[in-house]
Amino acid sequence: MSKQPRIELIILGNELLLGSRTNEHLSYLGRELSSFGLSIACNHVVQDDAKEIERAFKDAWKRCDIVITTGGLGPTSNDKTRETIAKALKKELIHDSEVESAIKDRLSQTGMPLTEKALKQCCRPEDFKVLPNRIGTAPGLFYKEDGNVLIMLPGPTVELRNIFERQAIPRLQQEGLLQEEKNALQLRCSGVDESILEEHLAPLFQEYPEVKVGYFPKQNIVDLRLSPVKPGLKTETLQALAERCKEKLGSNFVCYGDDGLAKMVLQMLSERGRVIAVAESCTGGLLADAITNVPGASKIFAGGAVCYNNDAKIEMLDVPEALLLQHGSVSAEVALAMATGAAERFYSDYALSTTGFAGPGGGTEDAPVGTVYVGFYSPMGAWSRKVHFTGDRPTIKQLAVNAALDWIRRELLEENPEEIDRSIETWMIEEILG
Amino acid sequence: MSKQPRIELIILGNELLLGSRTNEHLSYLGRELSSFGLSIACNHVVQDDAKEIERAFKDAWKRCDIVITTGGLGPTSNDKTRETIAKALKKELIHDSEVESAIKDRLSQTGMPLTEKALKQCCRPEDFKVLPNRIGTAPGLFYKEDGNVLIMLPGPTVELRNIFERQAIPRLQQEGLLQEEKNALQLRCSGVDESILEEHLAPLFQEYPEVKVGYFPKQNIVDLRLSPVKPGLKTETLQALAERCKEKLGSNFVCYGDDGLAKMVLQMLSERGRVIAVAESCTGGLLADAITNVPGASKIFAGGAVCYNNDAKIEMLDVPEALLLQHGSVSAEVALAMATGAAERFYSDYALSTTGFAGPGGGTEDAPVGTVYVGFYSPMGAWSRKVHFTGDRPTIKQLAVNAALDWIRRELLEENPEEIDRSIETWMIEEILG
Repeated sequence: MSKQPRIELIILGNELLLGSRTNEHLSYLGRELSSFGLSIACNHVVQDDAKEIERAFKDAWKRCDIVITTGGLGPTSNDKTRETIAKALKKELIHDSEVESAIKDRLSQTGMPLTEKALKQCCRPEDFKVLPNRIGTAPGLFYKEDGNVLIMLPGPTVELRNIFERQAIPRLQQEGLLQEEKNALQLRCSGVDESILEEHLAPLFQEYPEVKVGYFPKQNIVDLRLSPVKPGLKTETLQALAERCKEKLGSNFVCYGDDGLAKMVLQMLSERGRVIAVAESCTGGLLADAITNVPGASKIFAGGAVCYNNDAKIEMLDVPEALLLQHGSVSAEVALAMATGAAERFYSDYALSTTGFAGPGGGTEDAPVGTVYVGFYSPMGAWSRKVHFTGDRPTIKQLAVNAALDWIRRELLEENPEEIDRSIETWMIEEILG
Repeated sequence: MSKQPRIELIILGNELLLGSRTNEHLSYLGRELSSFGLSIACNHVVQDDAKEIERAFKDAWKRCDIVITTGGLGPTSNDKTRETIAKALKKELIHDSEVESAIKDRLSQTGMPLTEKALKQCCRPEDFKVLPNRIGTAPGLFYKEDGNVLIMLPGPTVELRNIFERQAIPRLQQEGLLQEEKNALQLRCSGVDESILEEHLAPLFQEYPEVKVGYFPKQNIVDLRLSPVKPGLKTETLQALAERCKEKLGSNFVCYGDDGLAKMVLQMLSERGRVIAVAESCTGGLLADAITNVPGASKIFAGGAVCYNNDAKIEMLDVPEALLLQHGSVSAEVALAMATGAAERFYSDYALSTTGFAGPGGGTEDAPVGTVYVGFYSPMGAWSRKVHFTGDRPTIKQLAVNAALDWIRRELLEENPEEIDRSIETWMIEEILG
């Protein structure tokens, strides 16, 4: 299949149409397919109703090379996809004894009996192939007719993803409908604006018209996604381009893939045998939370203090009362004292602190809502910086957390200067005390 | 329109099909429409391509009472919805001087000139009515033909929602296509399993066949949504039912709407003039984060300590070393000492603490991954409880936070016993120390 095949996706989802869940299957399949240079032409979310399924399927089947359906393969009376599509394609439903024994095996592991209802899942339309389900009961299904392909996946997220990656993709490859391997790369960048990134990298991407470039900015992190425009791109080409990007990105490059800043920071600290602590005012625990979301954080994270009021800053972090009275709790001086206090109290090598106005109330003329002072303590000294963000309260908290983690990430990189390229160093942080 | 009208939704979304954003428009419109007793029969997500838009629109227009489109009304060359649909309906595009002056007004506020591109947004298909955009440039559009209705909304979320609520809904009401007011209620419940809730409330709902009931469970919070099965339900009927549900729910009822547990707890503490502190091990800052996400938390939240290791528990929370050595850091005794230490160190009336194994590593035979001890300190005494959760690390953290907040919420309710009804009191928490 050298031309771009037309793919449509039919998702059964009463809950999606009621607005009670978001369409994660579309996001997942869209991303997965794009990493093979394929794209979804259209996604139909339909009600769990035989007529709706039939109409959507018949229309799509006429005009598509590949139709993918999700949901409606389970044991309940609401699960109508198998029957409806069999009827639409004029196929008999036949009992598949291999599926039955697989389902029996699976159920016996969990001590559940094989009910009449579960038996429904042992049927498949004639001429359909089974895509075995290794983690649930309802298998996926695969059908080919005149070069057109139908892939039917069960609705539960984990089962859908498992069958898609382990069964459906290899089957497409085996049938010669997909010649290549997955081929997409994501570079995560921090501390640089999307538009600057785009401007800086554009000349490079002009050399690679066969690569699709996507920028996905979120809370001062920009994900740069590289994938094939169409099937046929060599993995080596993509990797070479990614390496050139990485070089140009310098210290703005965080990692390949989608690890968070906290994970990268903990990794660097772990390599250096160092320990970190935090002192939070305006981020209110979110910085500690980001750090402790990383498995194994307990070895590197000494602890944190969330100190909203002055008493707590004095009692828990030894911030001098005179400093609070003279400069106010939202100040560069207090951020510095908080970081230092956290490092001393938690016996840590490094510390980060935040104090600011996350809104919607508070703020002063000099420091309106969105103003945050970030403090940084290290074996080399302690500093603080003033930053300003816009957004609602949770957004400002998240942006402040990202700014703090990005600061220590860059400082740790500096300690190994050979890793750094400062070509597009663009701090969005104003230096206050240096 | 007394019968249920057929509604289809066409969303322009290359980004959605690539999997780089989730389909928030569907969630929003699904929810909004269901609160009027309406439902979306089908949602098509299509590429920003004239042929795709034309096909999806023509198909939907044939079979629907109401077609809603989102996106593609802006000034760029990728914005093709207006032109494509005008062509499909054989309508001329005409210049609308009212739209032009509205766009000029809007642009002048932001100091931007009216470009050639922006002028494109001043066109509308003949016979279409304009749905003014009060916060952006591209207006929505409304068209009626033989009783069928087309509503076209711009893609940016804030503009879409504003125009839908302020312009499209009133227009449908004005045209007699929607006879009633928005009519939906959500009851948030905590600490009770969805299936128990369903069983307990089923007899009540049998009396109200005209009410659609939805259960939306997430992390031990269950949202119970009541909306009309079809247009025509009286607001008073829905309110009366909701009040009866609330009564049956007793202390499992958290609030109407979607406020979080933290907000309810802070509200109750504020009414009582009380202050709270937290001490976290396994939740790692997420409990403090939940509390500080509530605007105004600074008046009620004294502070928190995130103490992963024993040294920090001793230094910051005065947990006796002997207790840590005898019982281990994940124990009922240490949870109790942490809560007490937090209350004393932060001079607070109440305190919550958590210590446990959030995984994936750690855990013991007696306390496998997912085991969490929650501590509770109050002016009446201090207690701790053992709970067990399953899920990944962030999920276990979130479940532990919810359990801690739900505990204090119930205790605060108890202080005003007239508010409590214990008919379906179902603690999922095992009492360890009492």
